[in-house]
Amino acid sequence: VESRDTAALSGFLEPLHAADIADLLEQIGPAERRDLLGLWSGEIDGEILSEISDAIREEVIEFLPRHVLTDAVRELDTDDVVDILEDLDEPQQAIILGALESADRVAVEQAMAYPEYSAGRLMQREVVVAPLHWTVGEAIDFLRKAEHLPDQFYHVILVDPRMKPQGYVTLGRMLSSPRATALRDIAEDSFRTIKATDPEADVAYIFNQYHLISCPVVDATDRLVGVITIDDAMNVLDEEHEEDILRLAGVGDESAISDGILETVKQRFPWLFVNLLTANMAALVIAQFEATISVIVALAALMPIVASMGGNAGTQSLTVAVRALATKDLTSANAPRVVRREAAVGLINGAAFAVIMGLIGWLGYGSAGLGLVLASALVINLLVAALGGILVPLLLNKLRFDPALASGTFVTTLTDVIGFFAFLGLATLVLL
Amino acid sequence: VESRDTAALSGFLEPLHAADIADLLEQIGPAERRDLLGLWSGEIDGEILSEISDAIREEVIEFLPRHVLTDAVRELDTDDVVDILEDLDEPQQAIILGALESADRVAVEQAMAYPEYSAGRLMQREVVVAPLHWTVGEAIDFLRKAEHLPDQFYHVILVDPRMKPQGYVTLGRMLSSPRATALRDIAEDSFRTIKATDPEADVAYIFNQYHLISCPVVDATDRLVGVITIDDAMNVLDEEHEEDILRLAGVGDESAISDGILETVKQRFPWLFVNLLTANMAALVIAQFEATISVIVALAALMPIVASMGGNAGTQSLTVAVRALATKDLTSANAPRVVRREAAVGLINGAAFAVIMGLIGWLGYGSAGLGLVLASALVINLLVAALGGILVPLLLNKLRFDPALASGTFVTTLTDVIGFFAFLGLATLVLL
Repeated sequence: VESRDTAALSGFLEPLHAADIADLLEQIGPAERRDLLGLWSGEIDGEILSEISDAIREEVIEFLPRHVLTDAVRELDTDDVVDILEDLDEPQQAIILGALESADRVAVEQAMAYPEYSAGRLMQREVVVAPLHWTVGEAIDFLRKAEHLPDQFYHVILVDPRMKPQGYVTLGRMLSSPRATALRDIAEDSFRTIKATDPEADVAYIFNQYHLISCPVVDATDRLVGVITIDDAMNVLDEEHEEDILRLAGVGDESAISDGILETVKQRFPWLFVNLLTANMAALVIAQFEATISVIVALAALMPIVASMGGNAGTQSLTVAVRALATKDLTSANAPRVVRREAAVGLINGAAFAVIMGLIGWLGYGSAGLGLVLASALVINLLVAALGGILVPLLLNKLRFDPALASGTFVTTLTDVIGFFAFLGLATLVLL
Repeated sequence: VESRDTAALSGFLEPLHAADIADLLEQIGPAERRDLLGLWSGEIDGEILSEISDAIREEVIEFLPRHVLTDAVRELDTDDVVDILEDLDEPQQAIILGALESADRVAVEQAMAYPEYSAGRLMQREVVVAPLHWTVGEAIDFLRKAEHLPDQFYHVILVDPRMKPQGYVTLGRMLSSPRATALRDIAEDSFRTIKATDPEADVAYIFNQYHLISCPVVDATDRLVGVITIDDAMNVLDEEHEEDILRLAGVGDESAISDGILETVKQRFPWLFVNLLTANMAALVIAQFEATISVIVALAALMPIVASMGGNAGTQSLTVAVRALATKDLTSANAPRVVRREAAVGLINGAAFAVIMGLIGWLGYGSAGLGLVLASALVINLLVAALGGILVPLLLNKLRFDPALASGTFVTTLTDVIGFFAFLGLATLVLL
């Protein structure tokens, strides 16, 4: 790029897969990216555009000549266009909609009318259907004559005269059956449909749970409006996971390594601010015991151990709980048993660490009383951590909040406050 | 189940999908599970068996009558049998291998010869191939006559006479092309192969990056040995994510909500023990400053704020870094830029919180000096957190450790130790 050698650049980029070119564009710095686009923008196609991460897509679109953008957008399936549109500002949306052919534009606008993160946004409207009464031969003849088939399709969907899906046939079954076979006789039993208004998280769950490869989408009157394929579902699953991990760590959902400095500050500041408030709460608890600490200064050194063990144990429980809620492995049916198990685990681990730290307090700091206080505070805090780690996510889930989003803050605040209070409170009672 | 009404039970379970029956078995308690299996074990088929989580599968297998187990295992594809075998003890493995027909047994044993977590373990050996020179018509006639086709297949793989894959044709393209079309003329350009010894994490990455639906697997001499389909890749992706989340939280990789109490204690104890050691290290740092604390007891209340802010900021950076390493968005090419960005973010957030806590220290505790010390310690610790959060995962990755596994412990130890040391050290210098 530096030598502005366009031919060499094309020679290098041409054989790469669109996804790899998109990765390259993401990994280089903003200045290099501008240079590269300046030299090579004519070659950016729809596939590359839909592979680029949201963070820099806007930047790339602004840079593209209008005719390149038009060509790029026209070759995409409608679901990919919707995916690109979702993250753009109004004026950029208008440019892209304007670039589409009118039939596609209507399809995209209809998809955008469904709520964000719904199956309606995810589906492609290009579907391959056949009437219920057709045979394999009729379907094959129809496919051979069809002009516009989707890039990828894995089933032929059987519909009744009112376009209500009644079943589907895998292409493998179709290819291996004689021409005279009725399609309805080789339809899959695993057939199910998704409503266009279903949340995309449910779509990912259904694909994963029932090992689907594609699934018809129906509107409120059960008519076929589109189809979702497994690559879209895999994408959603990927994003949901990413979201869970980032939310558990207190980072904005959409953080990416290619974000700018100010964007990153903006994503992380709010969570740190919440943590500042809860840390100050814990400091207020400690401040109540300043008289005790001024008599036995060793307490100041030991108290973070109790809080930190509780925080870690709480994080363990809540992570398992948050994941189990996301995969629907934790339901109201087994919740009571899981809570009892967490309590037992908290008590056992608490007792084990109480023995270890009790001995350290006794022998290391030469006070049996201090050892006893440390041990008791640890048991209490690990039990609280275990119960908090399971009950807080369950409660947030019941209240329809995402447990990944807020559980961490609640649980560590709980273990900090209880840890300091139990340790310093017991010390005041026993040692003074 | 309680009323031992087998007919009613079958009526309830019969219409359910295998995955849902498996979920049910996981969610009920061990005693109920035994009762249910006692009443209904005759109906457990291969599909249910392969859906059950590892944690309770052993228990279920032990309970099944031999003939039920034999029938169940025989109906599965080889990759599903391998998946079940992997998590069983030797004697149980022998029972299942003995139940297979001999051709399948050989296939399964060959797959088990590949290293754990490799593409060879993941692939199914049932493949659909056609010679390079065939036409669409020849392929369709072959498929109509074939007796044993895989349950699911999405491509016909084109091979040369030595069984080396040369391309593949999607079933959709085949169905929509005239009989006389040569298969090689409608082969996909996106064709690629996977080596049987490739790690399964790379398989998941390739499927996700290039939106593959199935991919041929070759041995060391480039001969076709099997095929991996997207549902297997989706599974791996799911497991990798799960592993990352659980490791980041310091919980054993294979934790599940259905684990027993002792198993859970065993998974969580080691991580808490490591945390105990590092917390004691931090306590030793504090103990060096007992003289300072005994003069200004307020320090004891405020010091956890500095440590906690650092710990949270470090967790934010490292989570983003660990995820970016896993998705290959963070590479040596952009690492320097990302490190600079993290440092800048750490300094900006550090400065913002320094102002806030400086004011709280000054106005709330009536000491400008205390405010200054708090502010300086926060800037130092948030910078350390940001740098540690990115450099520790990068270093672990370079040393070929999984950064998700150990980064958290290193980074929070770092921010605890630096946080206490900076705050108490500065306080000793400035305030005494």
